[in-house]
Amino acid sequence: MQTDPQLDRLRGSIDNLDTAIISLLAERFKITQQIGLLKRERGLAPADPEREVEQIGRLRQLAIQSNLDPEFAEKLLNFIVAEVVRHHEAIVREAPDTTL
Amino acid sequence: MQTDPQLDRLRGSIDNLDTAIISLLAERFKITQQIGLLKRERGLAPADPEREVEQIGRLRQLAIQSNLDPEFAEKLLNFIVAEVVRHHEAIVREAPDTTL
Repeated sequence: MQTDPQLDRLRGSIDNLDTAIISLLAERFKITQQIGLLKRERGLAPADPEREVEQIGRLRQLAIQSNLDPEFAEKLLNFIVAEVVRHHEAIVREAPDTTL
Repeated sequence: MQTDPQLDRLRGSIDNLDTAIISLLAERFKITQQIGLLKRERGLAPADPEREVEQIGRLRQLAIQSNLDPEFAEKLLNFIVAEVVRHHEAIVREAPDTTL
C-alpha cells in the first residue's frame, strides 16, 4: 500500500466520512422500513411517482449547491431506492399473505 | 402525492438525512480531489489495489454492524469510486501535459 504522511491523513478523513455516510444510510433504511410498514397499514401504494419527482429535483438542486454533478445525485438516489425496494420485497416475503 | 401526517414526518426525516449524505459526499469528493493532486505531485500511481481491498473490508464490516447488507456497502463504494475516477479524468483533461 502507498504510504505518505499527507496521503495517510487524507485517507483517514475519507474513512471518517465513510463511517458517517454508512451510519446515515443505516438510519435512512430504518425510516424507509417504517414507511413500508406504514403504507401497508394504511393501504397506500408502495410507489409514489410524484414524491419521487420531487425528491429527484430536490437532490439535483442540493448537488449543484454542493458542487456535485446533479446526474451523480440522481443516479445515487436511484441506487439507494433500488435497495429500499429490495428491503420492501423482503417484508412481503416475510408476510406473503399481506400486500404492501 | 400521498399525504398522511405520519408519512410526511418520516419523509421529512429522509430529506434531512439525504441533505446530510449529499454534504458528506461533497466533502469526500473534495478530499479525493486533494488525493488526486497529491498523487500527481508525488508521482504515485492513481490506483492502490491494497488500499481498495482494505477499504472494502472495512466498509463491509461497518455495514454488518449497522445492520446493512455488506454487498450493498461494497457496491456503493464502487459506485462512488467510479465518480472519483471520472473527477480524476477531468483533472487530466484540464492538464493534458501532466500525468496523474
